[in-house]
Amino acid sequence: MAAALELVSSNKVFGGDLRKYKFKSAALGGLSANFNLFLPSQSATAKVPILFYLAGLTCTEDNGDVILLAQKGSFFEPAAANGIAILFPDTSPRGAGVAGEDDDWDFGTGAGFYLNATTPNYASHYQMLTHVTLELPQVIEAAGLPVDLSRQSIFGHSMGGHGALTLYLASQTNQYRSASAFAPICNPINCPWGQKAFKGYLQGGVEEAQDKYDATELIKKHKGPVNILIDYGTGDNFYKQGQLLPENFVAAAQGKDVTVRAQEDYDHSYYFISTFAADHVNFHAKFLRQ
Amino acid sequence: MAAALELVSSNKVFGGDLRKYKFKSAALGGLSANFNLFLPSQSATAKVPILFYLAGLTCTEDNGDVILLAQKGSFFEPAAANGIAILFPDTSPRGAGVAGEDDDWDFGTGAGFYLNATTPNYASHYQMLTHVTLELPQVIEAAGLPVDLSRQSIFGHSMGGHGALTLYLASQTNQYRSASAFAPICNPINCPWGQKAFKGYLQGGVEEAQDKYDATELIKKHKGPVNILIDYGTGDNFYKQGQLLPENFVAAAQGKDVTVRAQEDYDHSYYFISTFAADHVNFHAKFLRQ
Repeated sequence: MAAALELVSSNKVFGGDLRKYKFKSAALGGLSANFNLFLPSQSATAKVPILFYLAGLTCTEDNGDVILLAQKGSFFEPAAANGIAILFPDTSPRGAGVAGEDDDWDFGTGAGFYLNATTPNYASHYQMLTHVTLELPQVIEAAGLPVDLSRQSIFGHSMGGHGALTLYLASQTNQYRSASAFAPICNPINCPWGQKAFKGYLQGGVEEAQDKYDATELIKKHKGPVNILIDYGTGDNFYKQGQLLPENFVAAAQGKDVTVRAQEDYDHSYYFISTFAADHVNFHAKFLRQ
Repeated sequence: MAAALELVSSNKVFGGDLRKYKFKSAALGGLSANFNLFLPSQSATAKVPILFYLAGLTCTEDNGDVILLAQKGSFFEPAAANGIAILFPDTSPRGAGVAGEDDDWDFGTGAGFYLNATTPNYASHYQMLTHVTLELPQVIEAAGLPVDLSRQSIFGHSMGGHGALTLYLASQTNQYRSASAFAPICNPINCPWGQKAFKGYLQGGVEEAQDKYDATELIKKHKGPVNILIDYGTGDNFYKQGQLLPENFVAAAQGKDVTVRAQEDYDHSYYFISTFAADHVNFHAKFLRQ
């Protein structure tokens, strides 16, 4: 049975409601997990489709809130206009108590990488793939929220862009109708952030990640049509440092219906995200409203 | 001579630039002052009109940044579309060293109330009226920034809504073409926040404030046309507690061209502001683009 949801707060925005919920998460080892859910006004009379937004790397829960706060703002107006719910999960378990999980900003707390960990230290709590793809849909369904789970799409930023692309491409059930990403980590097996995460979370390390958690490897082998939009900024320092590697994804996706746009001079910040937020929500709306 | 500006950071957003500057502020007793300036892409080829945004009460500089961060997001898209610059001043001096200035969240640091203090403790640093109306225009003019100072308007939230309305109505030079406010403190001489501020900042206390710093009193005596838009939420706890008193302003403004809208169930948060952000920027654009 899915855990019961507790409403933490609710704010009216663009005619809809932004609600913060918490619940006891089985996927995350029984820890309390938070998420935010925007429900547009259309949900008062009919079930609405749902878009999952996965956030990027953050060092602490507070920082995470700040970044999330800012990012969410730009999504509500187009989501309200299109009648789409948006669900914002957290980026990792909070308070798992694993030795070292709070030492680095790019690993552990705030940096779950949207995978299911297999190393002994992390396996009992760091099951973010299960949390996002299975548990969250179950708890909102069980709570009777007015969401139509037959219409899901997913997007995200940076580490969350990696999450959106890999959960979309690796889904055995075509769970999501479309995926998009702002400045995603496109080829994590070949960048420092990804290699560090995979070595820490996966018993098989980078090799174990190759078939499951790398968007560039996944798109190479993907059969059938895809609906993918990616934006990144040419002024993004993480892009310049080789953490994102969008060119590798483009090369691997040849012949597939993938749009990857280099946006001149934009950086990695939420200013970049907010500029193209409506484009992304409207992209998903094409598939979610069918 | 106006102080030189130092560029702290710059981010591209909606085709324009958001720049953070600092300078040594004479108005604030020689302290370093920060402001943010959004310059739309149109400013690359011509001087653009400018809108001042005054933020609300904040307990610390960090909180101020968070709130500002969130609020700014929703303003850039309509400002970019209309070719309008937006300048975001701070809410008080920082580090004046007055005994007690950091004790309360609604007085002192982060709560300058956009007035010129006259009490001995505060007079040497808390000159926010001069800072916003005179000093900031001077420093951006002296820096050669592409802004047309013959076209200024002003808006703000909560304490900043009070600031926008009073600076607009009390201007001897019709400095601003229009004013608007989200959940403003409309009648501070009659509410706890305002009375506390005036007693602390002004030698003449609430009585000194009556003719200069109270929007309801100022609109009563105002001659000539006005361009004012106000939104507040009926779910706003500060409204319910009698801190905002928009009804007093409406009664005092009878016969004048003032639009005051009660927005059902919205609260005092940036979710409320973001929902009506485009309305406000577009309202000012009508006057600024003439």
